[in-house]
Amino acid sequence: MKYQTYERGYTPDKSFESIKEIISEAYHNGCEETSKGKPADYIPELAKADGNAFGISFLNNAGERIELGDVETRFTIQSISKVINLAASLKFRGYMDTFSHVLMEPTGDEFNSILKLDTRSDLPFNPFINAGAIQVVSLLADMFDFEEMLGFVRQMCMDNDIALNEDVYRSESETGDRNRAIAFLLKSKGVLMADPMKTVDLYFRLCSLNVTARSLAGLGIVLANGGMNPFTGKHFIAPNYVRTIKALMFTCGMYDFSGEWGVRVGIPAKSGVGGGVVCAGNGMGFGLYGPALDQAGNSVAAIAAMEHISHLLRLHAFES
Amino acid sequence: MKYQTYERGYTPDKSFESIKEIISEAYHNGCEETSKGKPADYIPELAKADGNAFGISFLNNAGERIELGDVETRFTIQSISKVINLAASLKFRGYMDTFSHVLMEPTGDEFNSILKLDTRSDLPFNPFINAGAIQVVSLLADMFDFEEMLGFVRQMCMDNDIALNEDVYRSESETGDRNRAIAFLLKSKGVLMADPMKTVDLYFRLCSLNVTARSLAGLGIVLANGGMNPFTGKHFIAPNYVRTIKALMFTCGMYDFSGEWGVRVGIPAKSGVGGGVVCAGNGMGFGLYGPALDQAGNSVAAIAAMEHISHLLRLHAFES
Amino acid sequence: MKYQTYERGYTPDKSFESIKEIISEAYHNGCEETSKGKPADYIPELAKADGNAFGISFLNNAGERIELGDVETRFTIQSISKVINLAASLKFRGYMDTFSHVLMEPTGDEFNSILKLDTRSDLPFNPFINAGAIQVVSLLADMFDFEEMLGFVRQMCMDNDIALNEDVYRSESETGDRNRAIAFLLKSKGVLMADPMKTVDLYFRLCSLNVTARSLAGLGIVLANGGMNPFTGKHFIAPNYVRTIKALMFTCGMYDFSGEWGVRVGIPAKSGVGGGVVCAGNGMGFGLYGPALDQAGNSVAAIAAMEHISHLLRLHAFES
Amino acid sequence: MKYQTYERGYTPDKSFESIKEIISEAYHNGCEETSKGKPADYIPELAKADGNAFGISFLNNAGERIELGDVETRFTIQSISKVINLAASLKFRGYMDTFSHVLMEPTGDEFNSILKLDTRSDLPFNPFINAGAIQVVSLLADMFDFEEMLGFVRQMCMDNDIALNEDVYRSESETGDRNRAIAFLLKSKGVLMADPMKTVDLYFRLCSLNVTARSLAGLGIVLANGGMNPFTGKHFIAPNYVRTIKALMFTCGMYDFSGEWGVRVGIPAKSGVGGGVVCAGNGMGFGLYGPALDQAGNSVAAIAAMEHISHLLRLHAFES
Repeated sequence: MKYQTYERGYTPDKSFESIKEIISEAYHNGCEETSKGKPADYIPELAKADGNAFGISFLNNAGERIELGDVETRFTIQSISKVINLAASLKFRGYMDTFSHVLMEPTGDEFNSILKLDTRSDLPFNPFINAGAIQVVSLLADMFDFEEMLGFVRQMCMDNDIALNEDVYRSESETGDRNRAIAFLLKSKGVLMADPMKTVDLYFRLCSLNVTARSLAGLGIVLANGGMNPFTGKHFIAPNYVRTIKALMFTCGMYDFSGEWGVRVGIPAKSGVGGGVVCAGNGMGFGLYGPALDQAGNSVAAIAAMEHISHLLRLHAFES
Repeated sequence: MKYQTYERGYTPDKSFESIKEIISEAYHNGCEETSKGKPADYIPELAKADGNAFGISFLNNAGERIELGDVETRFTIQSISKVINLAASLKFRGYMDTFSHVLMEPTGDEFNSILKLDTRSDLPFNPFINAGAIQVVSLLADMFDFEEMLGFVRQMCMDNDIALNEDVYRSESETGDRNRAIAFLLKSKGVLMADPMKTVDLYFRLCSLNVTARSLAGLGIVLANGGMNPFTGKHFIAPNYVRTIKALMFTCGMYDFSGEWGVRVGIPAKSGVGGGVVCAGNGMGFGLYGPALDQAGNSVAAIAAMEHISHLLRLHAFES
Repeated sequence: MKYQTYERGYTPDKSFESIKEIISEAYHNGCEETSKGKPADYIPELAKADGNAFGISFLNNAGERIELGDVETRFTIQSISKVINLAASLKFRGYMDTFSHVLMEPTGDEFNSILKLDTRSDLPFNPFINAGAIQVVSLLADMFDFEEMLGFVRQMCMDNDIALNEDVYRSESETGDRNRAIAFLLKSKGVLMADPMKTVDLYFRLCSLNVTARSLAGLGIVLANGGMNPFTGKHFIAPNYVRTIKALMFTCGMYDFSGEWGVRVGIPAKSGVGGGVVCAGNGMGFGLYGPALDQAGNSVAAIAAMEHISHLLRLHAFES
Repeated sequence: MKYQTYERGYTPDKSFESIKEIISEAYHNGCEETSKGKPADYIPELAKADGNAFGISFLNNAGERIELGDVETRFTIQSISKVINLAASLKFRGYMDTFSHVLMEPTGDEFNSILKLDTRSDLPFNPFINAGAIQVVSLLADMFDFEEMLGFVRQMCMDNDIALNEDVYRSESETGDRNRAIAFLLKSKGVLMADPMKTVDLYFRLCSLNVTARSLAGLGIVLANGGMNPFTGKHFIAPNYVRTIKALMFTCGMYDFSGEWGVRVGIPAKSGVGGGVVCAGNGMGFGLYGPALDQAGNSVAAIAAMEHISHLLRLHAFES
C-alpha cells in the first residue's frame, strides 16, 4: 500500500549497483515479514521448513547475479512445476493442441477446486489450478517418462542438481487423493489424455523436485528473456510461448491473490506452497524462497520484497 | 491463432504511416468477422443495433488520430462505465477506501453471477463484475449526483456530447431486477454503502450513456498516458491509479474471455455489451465499436482487429 | 437415538390418560433440552425470548386438549406461515396453478439459499424455503390484502387473537434485504407473480404474526384431520390439499434437519425460528413452543419431546 | 394430476379381487406411458433394453401375488442396491455406526453430484446418492466379499437366481470414473472407510445384479412387513431399521423427483436406471420394471401405475 505513489517524472536508476541496493532493501523488508506467515502443513515434510528462512536470487540478461539469504537451500518446487509443464506442452505439443485441452481463464476459486468442472466447463479453466495442471501432465505422460521430464526441468532452470525429494514425493502420493479424484473426474468427462493413476504419479513427482531460489532465478530469466538462455544464447522455448506463459502467470499465477499481485506488483509470477516464487520482469529473473506462507499460499516475504523491487525499479507491467 | 509466431528479431515499424496501414488492415479484418456475432438482445434497444457496423478510433500521446468506419455512431457505454466509476472512486475516495469495499480478483464466473457472494466472500470479487460495479457506485452515490458523474465521464472521455440515452436507461431500469437483487444482497451482507434503489438507479444511468468509438479512444489515451490528457497536459487521474485500473482491465476486463484476451492480445481493455471496447496500449488509446458480440459478450470485430494490431505493432504487455 | 428399538409386538395404549402421561414425560424431556440451544438473534426482537420457555399443546379429532407449560405465550409464527400460505394458494388458486409456479423438491441447502435458483431451476425448489415461500406469497398478493390473509390464518389456527407483532414486523422489514434480493431475483427470472416490494412486505407481515403453542395445535389438528375443523365439522381445506401439504412438510418442513426428523420422528411438521413447531400426526395436532434453537433453526425441546411422543405412541408414518 | 381429488368419504375396496382389478388398470396405464421415456444409455448394455417392456409384481403379507407383464425379465438392479446396502450396514454395523458415516438429508442435487461434498459437508448427504452409497459400501467392503453380499441380496429379495450381469459390470467399471472420483474425494476428506478402488469395485458389482420385477416385490414386502419374510415368518431385519429405510426412501428415493413422488404417490420407493422400482406400501410390496425413463431417471410407466394404485387404494402415507 505504501507503494501507491511516485513523484511525477520519477525515473529509476537501473545501474547494477542501484539494483543491488534495492534488492538488499527488499531482502530486509522480506525478512521482517516472515513472522506473519507459516509453512504449509498439509504434508509433514513441508511443515519442517524453517519459517524464518528467506532468500532472493536475481539474474539478468547479461548473466549477472545478485543473491541474498537462503539461495542455496533446497525446497520442493510444488506448483511452480505447473509453469514448466505448460512450457513442455507448448514446446512439444504446440499451442493449438495444448489449448484444445485446457482453457486460459482465471477462476477465483481455490487452486484445488473442482466446482467449475462440474458447473461451467468440462475442460479445466487454466493450467495453473490443479485440475488444469493434471490435464497438462496428461498431455505429456505418454510422451515422456519422469527422467526425461526431469532433464527438461534441469535445462529450463539451468540447474543440473535438481532431483526428486523422495520423502515429499511419498508424502504427496499418500495424501494426494483429492488430486486422484480430480484426475478421475477429468477422465469421466472424457478429457484426460492419459491414464489417471499414471498421470497423477508423474504430477506428484514433478511437484516434488528439489530446487533453490537460484534455480528459480534461472527459470525466471529464461522467461524474462523470451525463452533464451543468457549464458548459451540458445532459445530453449519460442518467444510466443513465453509470452503466453507470462500472460497466464499474470492472470492466474499467484493463486487467489493473482489479481491483487497484478495491481500491487505487476510482474508475471508463479508461487508454490514449498515457499518458492519465480518472477519474470523486464529482462530480469527473480527466484525467491520464503516458506512462511499467507492464507492464499504465497510467501509473505516474497510479496513484500517484490512489491518493493517492482516499485523502486518501476517494473510494473502497466507502469505509465 | 495465426498470430502465434514472429520471425526472430522482428521489430515493428511504428511510424504514423505504418500504424495507419496496420489499423486499416485490422479494420478490414474486423469487418469480415461481424457476421460471426450478433448484437445483445436482453433489452430491445440494444437489439436494434446494426450488426455489420464497425469502427476503430486511434489516438496517440501526440494527439494524432486515425479513424475508420463507424467512429461517430452513438451507442451505450454499458460495462465500460465500470472503468470510469472505478477511476472516480480511486480519485475521490482513494485506493485504500475503494479496495476496502471491493476485492481485486478475477472470478471465472459470469459477469452477473452472485455465486461467489454467497460462497466465497461478502465483498464482490472485483469492480468489473456487476456486483463489484454496483458496490463501487454505492461509494459514489452519496457524493455525486448523476449530472456530476456525467461531467466526470465527459472529461475522462474528452467528449462533451456524451448524454443519457433515455430509451436504453428506461429499458435497463425495467429489466434490471437482477441488478436490484445484487444490490439488496450486498445490502443484506452489510457491505453496500448507499441505498440499494438509489445506487442501482445511478448504475443504470451510467451504463446508458451514449458514447462513440472516438469517446473510447479518448478514454483509452488517458489511461495509456498515465492519466494525462494529451491535449491539455493536465493529469486527470494519478498514474498509480491508472496502473491499478489497467492491471484490473488485464485480469478482469473482457468478461469470461479476459484470460484468453491476455494471451492473444495482451493489452488492458474493457468491453461493454453495447459493442464498445476500450484499449490502453503503450502510449496508444483505441476505441472500437462493433455491436456483433460473441457468446462471452465481446465484440467479435474488435477482438479480430486488436489481435492484428497487437501482433503487428508488438503491443502485447509480455512481448519478449 | 435411544428410541431406535421396540420390543416385538409392542402396541401402545392410546387412551386419553396414557397420551396425557406420555406428553407429560415428553414435556419434561423437552425442558431438560432447552439449555442446549439458544433463541434466534438475527433480529433483536427474537433474541429477547426466554430460552428456558417450553410448552406443548395437544388437540385431537374429538376436540380434547392436553397442555403443559408455556402454551399461551405469544411468539411470532415465522416460517410456519409458509404452511398457511401454501394452504391459501392451494385453496384459492388450486393445485395446478400453485405448482406451475413452485417445485416440490427438498434442497439440502440453507433455507435462505439462492444457489439452486442460479444453477438448477428458475422456479424455487419448494414452498418451504424462503424463495419458494416468497413465490407463493406473490400468488396471493394481488388477490388478498394483509387483513384478509390474517383472517385466513386466524381461521386455520382457530385463534381470533392472532395479530401482527409490530416490533418484529419492523425488525424483519429493516433486516430483510436478503429476502428482497430473492424477490428481485425471482422477478428477474420472470417467475414472481406480483411486485417484489409488495410481495416481500406481505411476506414479512405474515411471518410476524403472534401465535401460541395452542394456535399451532389448532393448525395441526386441521391438517391431521384432513382439513376439517373438529369443532365445527367444516372442511376448511380439501383433503387432497392437506395430503400434499403434509407430504411436503415431511420432505422439507424442518429446514436442513428434515431428513433426520423424518427418520427419528416421522410426523409431518414445520418449524419456525420463533421457536414454534406444528405437527400433524394420526388424528392428533401438536403445537410446541421452545425458542431455544439448534444450529438448523429448530426448537431443541420440541425435537426431544416429539421424538418421545412419536416413539411411545408409535406415530411414525412408516412404523411397521 | 388427475388423481388430486376424492369424493368425500371414499373408502377403497381392498379385497384381493379389487386390488387385482386396480393393478390391472394401472398396468394398462403404465403401458401407455412407455413411449414417453427411453432407456438409459450411459452404458451400452442398458441402452439395449426394450423401451416398451413393462411389468408389475405385487406381493402381500399373506404371500399372495398379482403379476402382469414383464415380471420375469432380468435387468440390473442399479440404484435399488443402495437400499439393500443400507439395510446390510444397519443390520451388521448398527444405526449409530452407519449414521456417523453418512447423513440423512435429501440434497436436491443430481444423484452423482459432488457439489455438497465440497461446500456443505464432508459426509455425504444421504445413502441414496452415489457419494452416500459408495460411503455405505465402504462400511461393508472390509466385512464381506461380493459372494457374501450377493447372498444377502438374494435373501432380502427372496430370489436365489439373482446373479452378476458380467457385461453390465464390465461396462459400469469401464465408464465408472466419476464414481472413482467420488471415492477418492471421500478418501481425501478422511471419511471413506475402505480402499477406494476396492470399494468402488464392490459398488459396481452390487449395481450390476440381475433382478426381476418379482425380486423387487420380494424386497418390497420385506420392507412393507417390518422386515419379516411373509413366507418364513423370520425377521430378516429389525423393524426400526425398516422404518429408517422407508423414511429415507420417502425423502430421497426417487432422485430429483422424490418430493413430487411424495406428493403424488406417497409410498416409500426406490428406483434404478435399469428401469426397476420397488415400493413398500401398507402391507404391500410392489416391484416394477419399465426401462423407459424420464429425465430424472425414473421409469415413466412405474410412476403412472403407482400413482393410479396409490390413489385407488388410498395408500398415500399422508392420506387423511
